[in-house]
Amino acid sequence: MKTYRYDVTVHWGDTDPARIVFYPNYFAWFDESTRLLFDSVGLPWEKLMEKYRIHGLPIVEAHAKFLAPSKFRDEIVVESSVVEWNEKTFKVGHTVLNRGVRAVEGYEVRVWTNPRPDDPARLKAVPIPAEIKAAFE
Amino acid sequence: MKTYRYDVTVHWGDTDPARIVFYPNYFAWFDESTRLLFDSVGLPWEKLMEKYRIHGLPIVEAHAKFLAPSKFRDEIVVESSVVEWNEKTFKVGHTVLNRGVRAVEGYEVRVWTNPRPDDPARLKAVPIPAEIKAAFE
Amino acid sequence: MKTYRYDVTVHWGDTDPARIVFYPNYFAWFDESTRLLFDSVGLPWEKLMEKYRIHGLPIVEAHAKFLAPSKFRDEIVVESSVVEWNEKTFKVGHTVLNRGVRAVEGYEVRVWTNPRPDDPARLKAVPIPAEIKAAFE
Amino acid sequence: MKTYRYDVTVHWGDTDPARIVFYPNYFAWFDESTRLLFDSVGLPWEKLMEKYRIHGLPIVEAHAKFLAPSKFRDEIVVESSVVEWNEKTFKVGHTVLNRGVRAVEGYEVRVWTNPRPDDPARLKAVPIPAEIKAAFE
Repeated sequence: MKTYRYDVTVHWGDTDPARIVFYPNYFAWFDESTRLLFDSVGLPWEKLMEKYRIHGLPIVEAHAKFLAPSKFRDEIVVESSVVEWNEKTFKVGHTVLNRGVRAVEGYEVRVWTNPRPDDPARLKAVPIPAEIKAAFE
Repeated sequence: MKTYRYDVTVHWGDTDPARIVFYPNYFAWFDESTRLLFDSVGLPWEKLMEKYRIHGLPIVEAHAKFLAPSKFRDEIVVESSVVEWNEKTFKVGHTVLNRGVRAVEGYEVRVWTNPRPDDPARLKAVPIPAEIKAAFE
Repeated sequence: MKTYRYDVTVHWGDTDPARIVFYPNYFAWFDESTRLLFDSVGLPWEKLMEKYRIHGLPIVEAHAKFLAPSKFRDEIVVESSVVEWNEKTFKVGHTVLNRGVRAVEGYEVRVWTNPRPDDPARLKAVPIPAEIKAAFE
Repeated sequence: MKTYRYDVTVHWGDTDPARIVFYPNYFAWFDESTRLLFDSVGLPWEKLMEKYRIHGLPIVEAHAKFLAPSKFRDEIVVESSVVEWNEKTFKVGHTVLNRGVRAVEGYEVRVWTNPRPDDPARLKAVPIPAEIKAAFE
């Protein structure tokens, strides 16, 4: 299982008056890390959009448990991997480590879609090609 | 059960190249709506911090299901209420409605804390006072 | 000269560990207020894009002087108006008032563009139609 | 004159429906780069706050000219240096380069402050120590 390790520096503007990361920022980092994970296995989104007619990888669910705070200047690592493949969706697991300590544990569920034949402006979930799944093994 | 209805306008900068809301923004709106819910029952955070020595209401878990996209200019409503009280934590449920359609369904779990007697710079979870719970009935 | 008054609540996540608004947020509010100013004179961007083939109103310059800080919970007002019309550009002035006190004084310069005849993916500045200017008088 | 070169990757969430960077983000990168410039000359803010009783380096002015757009995936560089020292303020110049092309040209003016003797909760501008200026030569 391929894992991507994404280094993030916590900047001043990422933190709030409690001097810790304002939590929605973790989800932005999850989103970035998912994209970088795909890049790292040779599947950049632009290539997928062209080859498979997907329109991004729409998110249908996101979750996080916040176990320890991160502060200004912390150098954290987001470790991301696909932890579950379903027929038309997949789950990306994200673990944020701060000096080796597990700070956040989360996941995103994303869906593989194509334009609807009857209405191309709308999307419908379709099966994920086997070669996509194989690329993460 | 008290519910707060928070009106949000989706601005250009809230959306991404797919022309829909970049999903971490929903969590920022959840956070804002939780604060406004507390205000609406007469419990602004500053008052709580002074009276109960809490240091904000740290988040320990956040979750969202994204059911329908929201776009630039959409006028959405975040409906928020405390859906579960535990001894030291509580769950705030958030439903985002877009023109009457359920667009996002999520929640936050937050914890009631006090400074640790042995190390005031650190926090420990403590029981939520009964009058706090009563204020939301 | 038409002026738009945009009410903004400063939320927790808009502020930094110094407990004041993280300054890039003011520019996001400038951007929102410019759009709302155009709406208020009956010129929503979508209509402009369709009728005049512009592609948004690209920003070429932004400036702000920060005169007084704004804090969590402050209810501020962004007052916006077009303060200068040039042949192909215009300047939107923004004043942020916090309880009647001038907190920020800024502006944006934006440009009126059309696709280049030789390369429609690129934009070129073109003269602003007289009826656009007239709408703000 | 010391210059800091700050590498930034443009992420999906940094861009808007026009598929270019939403401009307030450049100011966030300016802010980050100023902090990193100070770090790079051995003057981290925490040390300054302790030694000189300053409370951050409040911004009093920010400016940017946007010369060329940056897009999703672009690897840009923010080059930052102190371009002007005044008695109590200084100007940090920022140039954003995108594949060698000048994309943004901007600056921030920041002020050196101490708590007011009569009211420590408020700040007043004070002269910048000579050794601070010397550190950037």
